[in-house]
Amino acid sequence: MIIVMKPRSKQEDIKRLTDKVLEKGLEAHVVQGQELTIIGCIGDTSRIDLKQFELDLSVDRVMHVQEPYKLANRAFHPEDSCIDVSGVKVGRGHLALIAGPCSVESTEQVLEIAQAVKASGANMLRGGAFKPRTSPYAFQGMGVDGLKILSEVKAETGLPIVSELMSPEYLDLFNEKVDLIQIGARNMQNFDLLKHLGDINRPILLKRGLNATYEEWVMSAEYIMASGNENVILCERGIRTFESYTRNTLDLQCIPVMKKLTHLPVIIDPSHAGGKWWLVEPMAKASIAAGADGLMIEVHNDPSNALCDGAQSLKPDKYDELLKNIVEIAHVIEKKA
Amino acid sequence: MIIVMKPRSKQEDIKRLTDKVLEKGLEAHVVQGQELTIIGCIGDTSRIDLKQFELDLSVDRVMHVQEPYKLANRAFHPEDSCIDVSGVKVGRGHLALIAGPCSVESTEQVLEIAQAVKASGANMLRGGAFKPRTSPYAFQGMGVDGLKILSEVKAETGLPIVSELMSPEYLDLFNEKVDLIQIGARNMQNFDLLKHLGDINRPILLKRGLNATYEEWVMSAEYIMASGNENVILCERGIRTFESYTRNTLDLQCIPVMKKLTHLPVIIDPSHAGGKWWLVEPMAKASIAAGADGLMIEVHNDPSNALCDGAQSLKPDKYDELLKNIVEIAHVIEKKA
Amino acid sequence: MIIVMKPRSKQEDIKRLTDKVLEKGLEAHVVQGQELTIIGCIGDTSRIDLKQFELDLSVDRVMHVQEPYKLANRAFHPEDSCIDVSGVKVGRGHLALIAGPCSVESTEQVLEIAQAVKASGANMLRGGAFKPRTSPYAFQGMGVDGLKILSEVKAETGLPIVSELMSPEYLDLFNEKVDLIQIGARNMQNFDLLKHLGDINRPILLKRGLNATYEEWVMSAEYIMASGNENVILCERGIRTFESYTRNTLDLQCIPVMKKLTHLPVIIDPSHAGGKWWLVEPMAKASIAAGADGLMIEVHNDPSNALCDGAQSLKPDKYDELLKNIVEIAHVIEKKA
Amino acid sequence: MIIVMKPRSKQEDIKRLTDKVLEKGLEAHVVQGQELTIIGCIGDTSRIDLKQFELDLSVDRVMHVQEPYKLANRAFHPEDSCIDVSGVKVGRGHLALIAGPCSVESTEQVLEIAQAVKASGANMLRGGAFKPRTSPYAFQGMGVDGLKILSEVKAETGLPIVSELMSPEYLDLFNEKVDLIQIGARNMQNFDLLKHLGDINRPILLKRGLNATYEEWVMSAEYIMASGNENVILCERGIRTFESYTRNTLDLQCIPVMKKLTHLPVIIDPSHAGGKWWLVEPMAKASIAAGADGLMIEVHNDPSNALCDGAQSLKPDKYDELLKNIVEIAHVIEKKA
Repeated sequence: MIIVMKPRSKQEDIKRLTDKVLEKGLEAHVVQGQELTIIGCIGDTSRIDLKQFELDLSVDRVMHVQEPYKLANRAFHPEDSCIDVSGVKVGRGHLALIAGPCSVESTEQVLEIAQAVKASGANMLRGGAFKPRTSPYAFQGMGVDGLKILSEVKAETGLPIVSELMSPEYLDLFNEKVDLIQIGARNMQNFDLLKHLGDINRPILLKRGLNATYEEWVMSAEYIMASGNENVILCERGIRTFESYTRNTLDLQCIPVMKKLTHLPVIIDPSHAGGKWWLVEPMAKASIAAGADGLMIEVHNDPSNALCDGAQSLKPDKYDELLKNIVEIAHVIEKKA
Repeated sequence: MIIVMKPRSKQEDIKRLTDKVLEKGLEAHVVQGQELTIIGCIGDTSRIDLKQFELDLSVDRVMHVQEPYKLANRAFHPEDSCIDVSGVKVGRGHLALIAGPCSVESTEQVLEIAQAVKASGANMLRGGAFKPRTSPYAFQGMGVDGLKILSEVKAETGLPIVSELMSPEYLDLFNEKVDLIQIGARNMQNFDLLKHLGDINRPILLKRGLNATYEEWVMSAEYIMASGNENVILCERGIRTFESYTRNTLDLQCIPVMKKLTHLPVIIDPSHAGGKWWLVEPMAKASIAAGADGLMIEVHNDPSNALCDGAQSLKPDKYDELLKNIVEIAHVIEKKA
Repeated sequence: MIIVMKPRSKQEDIKRLTDKVLEKGLEAHVVQGQELTIIGCIGDTSRIDLKQFELDLSVDRVMHVQEPYKLANRAFHPEDSCIDVSGVKVGRGHLALIAGPCSVESTEQVLEIAQAVKASGANMLRGGAFKPRTSPYAFQGMGVDGLKILSEVKAETGLPIVSELMSPEYLDLFNEKVDLIQIGARNMQNFDLLKHLGDINRPILLKRGLNATYEEWVMSAEYIMASGNENVILCERGIRTFESYTRNTLDLQCIPVMKKLTHLPVIIDPSHAGGKWWLVEPMAKASIAAGADGLMIEVHNDPSNALCDGAQSLKPDKYDELLKNIVEIAHVIEKKA
Repeated sequence: MIIVMKPRSKQEDIKRLTDKVLEKGLEAHVVQGQELTIIGCIGDTSRIDLKQFELDLSVDRVMHVQEPYKLANRAFHPEDSCIDVSGVKVGRGHLALIAGPCSVESTEQVLEIAQAVKASGANMLRGGAFKPRTSPYAFQGMGVDGLKILSEVKAETGLPIVSELMSPEYLDLFNEKVDLIQIGARNMQNFDLLKHLGDINRPILLKRGLNATYEEWVMSAEYIMASGNENVILCERGIRTFESYTRNTLDLQCIPVMKKLTHLPVIIDPSHAGGKWWLVEPMAKASIAAGADGLMIEVHNDPSNALCDGAQSLKPDKYDELLKNIVEIAHVIEKKA
């Protein structure tokens, strides 16, 4: 932590600040310069609200130095993590290829899609049973029945299931039936929900919030890990910006950044990012070329009649074509698809 | 709903789209022009995923026309709503003047602050018992004990309590002890939590999400109202933008906008918006001048030792000064303080 | 400048960095701590590209400490500046009340509006002769003829003129005919244009860029002042955010912030901010309550037939009403209107 | 253009609006529905300020339908454009591989870098002679001498030159010496500068503004083309968002989007986007995988001593490695490198 004093601070001001730093159990090192004086503070600053020091009239600003996360921090875990999702490995060279409909609508629908994507090379099936809808009047998902359908299709195809959990109320049910539990963008900072995830042993797919900074995203992963569940996979799905032509702006720089800051796998959801099916293919290729550990793509056999997000879904034949390209690019980048 | 066809669409394309519109139970009115053709669709489009139509290769884009909210919509409730919070009125000319510490730390602390702000003219006391912290290692609040303290201070001072609810787990406890239940910015789209609010009879203070559009904010209010609780007060606390000098950007345009779209009261939290105590006074005055129905301001008797957000808190004497100015400005704008 | 070393840096790395700092003519003060080491660098860092130090593999990051501006900096000019615009004072308690049409369309139009706003209390007349239009096909303004009309109306009414300069080509003409030369949002970082402003002696109205940070805005003022023209008035006109219901988001926090960082007057343009006429009144009041040094408002006698921006213009009678309120609020805040 | 009337509009209101539409020379088609009435307006709306209609008290909002650009519009030029830059083709399968230092510092520096990048496969040399600096005190570039150096190096290596033009004052000089004239992000809406580009016959590299929407970017291209110069290449360099860890957020979705809206080539500058050299490689690969028509990358032989932007520059050996990967990926995507 570094305190920057205002120009022309008096000795008494510097002393007062220095005493305050010492009171907090930190060391204080004063560096007096031409126009400014700084006080370097060494020690455990994790529980100190740095901004308090800013209240002193002689302080110009306070700068935080240490990263506030440990469990997710690559500095303490230099190797890439590899997460096992019911036998499917993600990370450290292994790609997650997750595909399926936005919503579970019926057994026939999910089964048909699952068989198609499996044949194309997908290794996990996604499907929403509980849907986060901006409007209370929109289709909210099939709920528990939706999970039943996913289980049946898993039994049929062998594909592990990825589905979004929206409430601690269904924690046990998800722990039983869902292989990779998704926490949606709008719940990335639902700290109450995150803390509960320590109680279960399924891996978690943590979506980045619509406007979460990289640091906030890591801290949410840290919440889950600190609660006792260290199996976290990060998923970027686009961030909100001023541009409204696309649903969100896909931030692929997050791949190298998050891989520098953390050891967790990073996958991309290009379907929700662009919001238009014709953006999925180029963005999926770009993601793999950038080093992503996988893709989660919405696939529907009849998008124009999908109960939600049909406009961004790929038809099975297009998904099939895409995976062939993905395999080629992955080969150039040396990932196992 | 309006479908815009691509340039030089053929008759067969227009027919195909028109048939699809009719299938959905809507009327279709084709308007053919020089370079473009549009199809006006009349009927109940609330459950239709408009973007599906965009999938048709002949469609350029689809425009949503009807507002998706009813209960919150001023078009259906032209009069300003006035919400009663245990005897304190908010809206329709009555100002909510909520003040108190960010966190409940001890009975002495809360009592001292409560007595001071009450003497200054505050009509409600805020205090956080359950704190949303970005880091799992930061102080999470006193929890249930914190609520106890707030109740004691309420008994002493008569001030109704405002406190943030973060989990459905504590719904009954809050329903019993808290007069105005706050839903925090990060939970504005925690739909699971919102739906539960229909089970209780306390008024709700709905904070705008860090990057919620006006429409999303209204829809979250609609969720609460559709669940059975129509007593909602909106609270703007700054939105996230590219500017990092301030914690958030306070968007005062939301006051006239939300009052045009809805009939609900709109109050402002200038403390969390700027994140610096010296921004509170000018922004509080600006809020009242712009027509806000109230202010929620963090006040602490010893900000440099506050357990959280001390840097944005006002000392009681500054709060006292501020309220005097507020009263004058409110007088000019004709609100009752 | 502060260099933060990566965790567990070796002595040889610290020495290498320290040597590099000394080479640049700075002093280096090493502060070694539990988990991190920082090097405080004292001296003139204004011409050093700080990010170069980040290239060293042992460096985690480099933090800039000194503010990069001097002439605009309040630290060096503690008193509020008062800018004289052909006899009209702006700042240090004096309000600029600028009104007029978005575009100059005809002598009759400008004269009628000028007489009306003058009667209401406006002390300067705005009018665009050269218009920045996003489309090359839209009305670009009357150009030189437009300036002629403004001069005639000035002769008639005595109101000083505010008009936007878009090219150095017209510098001399503007220097002659325009009292307060406006630099538009899209030209805030047209450094070539800014440098030319040092050649003239008219005060400059510097609009904030659509996405300019406070610091960039100050630096653009610094460009103008460093070129030799110290008469700069700042004008906020809304920033671009994710919200699309309003044209821009009006950031009133800029008033206390810019008045803390600089000594220059700060005025507000609520017309371009909201883009809707019914947002102007509440935002104008809020601006004055927040301490703004003035307002620039678009007024048109026949908005529905205006050649541009009619939707955000006030009719003269509404402007008249507004100014009465402004005077009252200014009285509360102690500004001279 | 579509006018949406407010709920429960009266016949007289509809008539008044309809008359107004007819006055503007458009056709008016009224579609009356359950809760809303819309008026479809057909005709040339390019010079009409749509928002005027919003002023009528019965109008809820007005929606723009026709795209406001023609020359850049793919609808009118279905084939990809291929721009010839002094013999180097860009677009329609041909990749621009532009590399060089941020600033021209000396003949030795530029020559060494040019020879290295040419050997690696670059087909154009970039170098800044006139630098846009946020601070008036920072190095502004070598100016005319910088252009001389670039010409010498071009004579030596045969590489066409890319350099940024900041003022119409140097138009003729650039037309003579520079092969591909760059318009910087901060000048994307410097309409005065754009209009001048019609007077020359060099191709233009138009950088996207820090917060330009796709539409604004196209309109700036339209400005240049409408002025008489149709040789425009688009360049994305990252947009400004809430994230501050990276300098900008690279928006690769712009590649498929701009290729849908326009027929112009789209290249990527991953150096300015991320602002950190270690982001360049993954983002360059991602760009090519996404279908970009080229890359512009900063390369410096001694980044830690570069006069600007050293932190984001690649060393020649890293650039060499990168181009090998680019060639492989381009092969998968079928572009000619």
